[in-house]
Amino acid sequence: MMASIQTAAAALRLRDNHSTSVGPVQFNRGWRRSGCVKMKANNVNMRMTHTPLRDKGGEAEANGGYLLGGFLAEDRFVYRQTFVIRSYETGPDKTATMETLMNLLQETALNHVSSAGVAGNGFGATREMSIRKLIWAVTRINIQVDEYSSWGDVVVVDTWVDAGGKNGMRRDWIIRDYNTNKIISRATSNWVNMNRETRRVSKIPDAVREEIQPFYLNKVAITPQNSDTHKIEKLTDQTAQRIHNGLAPRWSDMDANQHVNNVKYFGWLLESVPINVLEDYNMTSMTLEYRRECRQSNLLESLTTITVNGEDQKMLECTHLLRMEEDKAEIVRARSAWQFKKPRHNI
Amino acid sequence: MMASIQTAAAALRLRDNHSTSVGPVQFNRGWRRSGCVKMKANNVNMRMTHTPLRDKGGEAEANGGYLLGGFLAEDRFVYRQTFVIRSYETGPDKTATMETLMNLLQETALNHVSSAGVAGNGFGATREMSIRKLIWAVTRINIQVDEYSSWGDVVVVDTWVDAGGKNGMRRDWIIRDYNTNKIISRATSNWVNMNRETRRVSKIPDAVREEIQPFYLNKVAITPQNSDTHKIEKLTDQTAQRIHNGLAPRWSDMDANQHVNNVKYFGWLLESVPINVLEDYNMTSMTLEYRRECRQSNLLESLTTITVNGEDQKMLECTHLLRMEEDKAEIVRARSAWQFKKPRHNI
Repeated sequence: MMASIQTAAAALRLRDNHSTSVGPVQFNRGWRRSGCVKMKANNVNMRMTHTPLRDKGGEAEANGGYLLGGFLAEDRFVYRQTFVIRSYETGPDKTATMETLMNLLQETALNHVSSAGVAGNGFGATREMSIRKLIWAVTRINIQVDEYSSWGDVVVVDTWVDAGGKNGMRRDWIIRDYNTNKIISRATSNWVNMNRETRRVSKIPDAVREEIQPFYLNKVAITPQNSDTHKIEKLTDQTAQRIHNGLAPRWSDMDANQHVNNVKYFGWLLESVPINVLEDYNMTSMTLEYRRECRQSNLLESLTTITVNGEDQKMLECTHLLRMEEDKAEIVRARSAWQFKKPRHNI
Repeated sequence: MMASIQTAAAALRLRDNHSTSVGPVQFNRGWRRSGCVKMKANNVNMRMTHTPLRDKGGEAEANGGYLLGGFLAEDRFVYRQTFVIRSYETGPDKTATMETLMNLLQETALNHVSSAGVAGNGFGATREMSIRKLIWAVTRINIQVDEYSSWGDVVVVDTWVDAGGKNGMRRDWIIRDYNTNKIISRATSNWVNMNRETRRVSKIPDAVREEIQPFYLNKVAITPQNSDTHKIEKLTDQTAQRIHNGLAPRWSDMDANQHVNNVKYFGWLLESVPINVLEDYNMTSMTLEYRRECRQSNLLESLTTITVNGEDQKMLECTHLLRMEEDKAEIVRARSAWQFKKPRHNI
């Protein structure tokens, strides 16, 4: 672990501020039994039965009470949320992009934390973390995709947390297709605590571990033999086959903390991948190692090297690096695996 | 009207291809009476009562049957869809971005067309249009925003179409907050036909007009006195206060037709707006005039000029131009209005 890392947790403050404005919905709530929330607006006839963590009542009605997510009745440590893939979340190849999947993972994680009842005064942070000015920072994420969804498809995302590494937390996800119930994607990630002012990583304090441990679930989305755990080589000017420089974060790439949202890094990594790879191959796995935060004023460089694998050369492995243009400091190392696209029957 | 225009209709082909793969759900279906579709997957307990246009049955169950939209029982020309604002659809100021609103407008329009029962073999195109290789192209859109939503807020989008201009169609939208039922945004747009091969604009043929006319609703989202109809001045090197060049479309900015999705233009227009405007002001209105399509190989320039209005100088009006870097050909002219942000109570 190097320096400080960009974090989804910064964005999490959004939610708490918002919640505060509509009433103390997210706070001081523990695990609750399954219930049914009925919703009705003046002119929207819509009713939904799900498995929310809160009892039916005024609080659950706040903010529309309109969450397509909740804890499973049969496994109260698993938070589940259902999403319809929207047209603008699909890419040029007509399927949901990897960036969309990462967004859905983020959204589910944030809703999980909001719903878990330990939320403090920071987005995703627990009460004991807030007291200590700590936020969550993601250090590594691996996403494996068997099948990409299309516009209008419905996906069901499960997420849960467990102990991870020496001083961290692991968060896993499984994405299923709503119709077939087939698992189409799996993901795992590691999180540490970070001081929101100094941006330095710290051990998880005992008081925080005591808060979150009751929610740990000893279950893995990706089995050890399928895990991508080996080291990601650091690309250099000499080893990179392609370098795309001059990448400038936009204002809209920033989160509420004026830091770059970590999903955005992914798009920049792809900038140095040749267009024929983007067009002709499906990304089947992506591992990101976050090393350093970046801000809007930083210009970035994206580096990629490609290795062809497989007997018929239909598989690629890429190594990526996103670094500062000025001092070449590492921001994200990444590895991706790609498979040549099969002809689609529906085209 | 100049040359060809980038169009959401290109992206529309997505949907038809996809629909074809799951069965002939979208085709040859007319207006139907209100109904109730019950949905249940193996392990997702979720039921929804809405006003779909199709009867309950096998076809409606296809693809999850999982649309949060349908025609209104009380006004069958209005298509309504409900959305939960997701965390990643909010910007640094913690509210849904204008780009998010434009995406929701697009999604609703596409679902409207898919559901209307006149769909041909092109995304958003009618059968008579498909026979003639015509697609829809947007020429102008004006979006007015009274209030930006936050993460977790639920918004209800209504859309309908009417005759527009000499040979076009008008599409309007109204966005309400689900909880308050207050109108928070209004939008209107003009559409023409375009040949999908030559990319040239054409009159709407009589056969096409006969197809769509039955769906016209004589109702405006924005009253004439509130409409932004005056000419948008063309910015030049001399009149632009700020020019941001070297904007390069990414692969992920392309739609299925390898053209830039028209919502993306909006982000590039903002590139030449000073960051303190983006931070300290809310955009209350945006008008875009689409002049020309662009492709991934084009480098773009964004130009902006700002005028301060209002007694207390708390209102800004900006004129924008997006043009090709090489030959300075116009892509989009735009005008935006901004209001100084009021202090938020929930921060």
